[in-house]
Amino acid sequence: MSDRSVLVTGASGCIGSVCARQLVAAGYDVHGTSRSDAHPAIAGVTWHKTDLIAPGATAELVAEVAPTHLLHMAWHMAAGNWQASGGDEHLAWVRASTELVQAFHHQANDRGLRVVCAGSGTEYDWNLDTYPESASRKPASFYGQAKTSTGDLLMGYAELEELSLAWGRIFFMYGGPENPRRLVPSVITNLLQGQEAPTSNGTQIRDFLYVEDIASAYVALLGSDMTGAVNVASGDGVTLRSIIETIGELTGATDLLRIGAIDQAPGDTPKVVADVTRLRSIGWTPAFDLEAGLAATIDYWQRRIDAGETSE
Amino acid sequence: MSDRSVLVTGASGCIGSVCARQLVAAGYDVHGTSRSDAHPAIAGVTWHKTDLIAPGATAELVAEVAPTHLLHMAWHMAAGNWQASGGDEHLAWVRASTELVQAFHHQANDRGLRVVCAGSGTEYDWNLDTYPESASRKPASFYGQAKTSTGDLLMGYAELEELSLAWGRIFFMYGGPENPRRLVPSVITNLLQGQEAPTSNGTQIRDFLYVEDIASAYVALLGSDMTGAVNVASGDGVTLRSIIETIGELTGATDLLRIGAIDQAPGDTPKVVADVTRLRSIGWTPAFDLEAGLAATIDYWQRRIDAGETSE
Repeated sequence: MSDRSVLVTGASGCIGSVCARQLVAAGYDVHGTSRSDAHPAIAGVTWHKTDLIAPGATAELVAEVAPTHLLHMAWHMAAGNWQASGGDEHLAWVRASTELVQAFHHQANDRGLRVVCAGSGTEYDWNLDTYPESASRKPASFYGQAKTSTGDLLMGYAELEELSLAWGRIFFMYGGPENPRRLVPSVITNLLQGQEAPTSNGTQIRDFLYVEDIASAYVALLGSDMTGAVNVASGDGVTLRSIIETIGELTGATDLLRIGAIDQAPGDTPKVVADVTRLRSIGWTPAFDLEAGLAATIDYWQRRIDAGETSE
Repeated sequence: MSDRSVLVTGASGCIGSVCARQLVAAGYDVHGTSRSDAHPAIAGVTWHKTDLIAPGATAELVAEVAPTHLLHMAWHMAAGNWQASGGDEHLAWVRASTELVQAFHHQANDRGLRVVCAGSGTEYDWNLDTYPESASRKPASFYGQAKTSTGDLLMGYAELEELSLAWGRIFFMYGGPENPRRLVPSVITNLLQGQEAPTSNGTQIRDFLYVEDIASAYVALLGSDMTGAVNVASGDGVTLRSIIETIGELTGATDLLRIGAIDQAPGDTPKVVADVTRLRSIGWTPAFDLEAGLAATIDYWQRRIDAGETSE
């Protein structure tokens, strides 16, 4: 057994797969879980095929891997849209997540040293001005509720049991193999293929972070001893409109933008920008600004289009 | 199968057993769970021996009973003191509670009509002035956290699934076979046995409700269609000192009281009184005032002393 072996759940996912690659580079012995055999190819990752919500699966997995570190990114996702999943699935993931952390903690010889789990910015009440980790939570979706409850339970459990655990709340991610129907990939793929890109006016201000930076934040958290809730975000606000316009400029297809062609969602909160004081205090900084992240994302979709992979 | 069959978990417990008796009287076909064969004798109750946190136990139980109503009172209790239980036990009960409600909800032919579960006043931030159900939650114990999270998950799930569910938050209970080391029974048993009863000054104001009234509140909730969180309490504040003095008067042993002999717990919040507007709105009223409840509790302990049952 390695000195530092990390179990990464959801390692075939959009963020988890980047975390797994970065953790290999950081010198961990990386064990990834995947529900199917169709996981991404990541050099150095040992794959474990498992359905984490199946009875006994988490205990079996932990016994098999005997990890010193746990990065728990997996959660139910229905058709690429976590917020639309059913209540039964979310409750199953609350149970699996608590079981997993308990199994990790109760390993022989106190082998389990450090846990980092994926929480969500949707846990907060999105009618606030600022979002430090202490901001009041009032999730608008059951997904947000399930994450809030799981995080509170795990942080409380960790405190009681003196287990080192951080709960990283992701705000807005872009980049990598995200659902092509989401804003950034849908505008990019339309423009790259010479099609019009109808969007709303996009006046909402959001805190977007490129997938590589989200992953590096989780890797930094895992290597730190910071406990409790930590926002995983840029700390900077951008309008959706400026994202759309930057994509137009970078692809040279500004003429295909149709900003305002779609009505803005009613009641959408005007501004959500994270307070990242805690995350910055461990020394993490993002490597990609918005332009660099969008340029990399455009490259990614150009390669997929060239390979004939964007039927959707 | 009866038209109205209720599954009562924790039916051998202090409150659950009274609920079970009252539900029989109210005409329900009552099925009670107990972890051991040593359950109380309650006429009309069908007992099911089960350990609800064992894998598959909740689904098996629901399939066996096929209840139309669910009153979920069971929770882990370590040596009669729920607040002192370990984190693993509380997490196991979060899981069992969510599984139980899901199994109940997913019965064939939409047989499951109505759920009421036991929450706790300890879910709230006890530094507030008033405690409507919307008051902010900030549990001081992991027990309170586990109840908070379970309640939020179940209320969110019920809303999503259109399941009729109420979460009854109990404040301070007294009466019946409660842990003899708690304030009310310890003062009573000391005085009844001619021993001094050392207590603190008891300046804290609390919302106490007699066990029969707590049970009748749950029975009323189960028969109502009120959903969401509901405080289960009297709505009246009394000082612990006035409870102690009333016990002294009712037992005629005021001379044995030693009020102030014990230091008050530092940092104990001065006042916790529930807002019971919601509970009252379904027509429930308590049958016992403090004097009547304490008199009944004194009778109970006198009978146990007469039967030689108070070794503790």
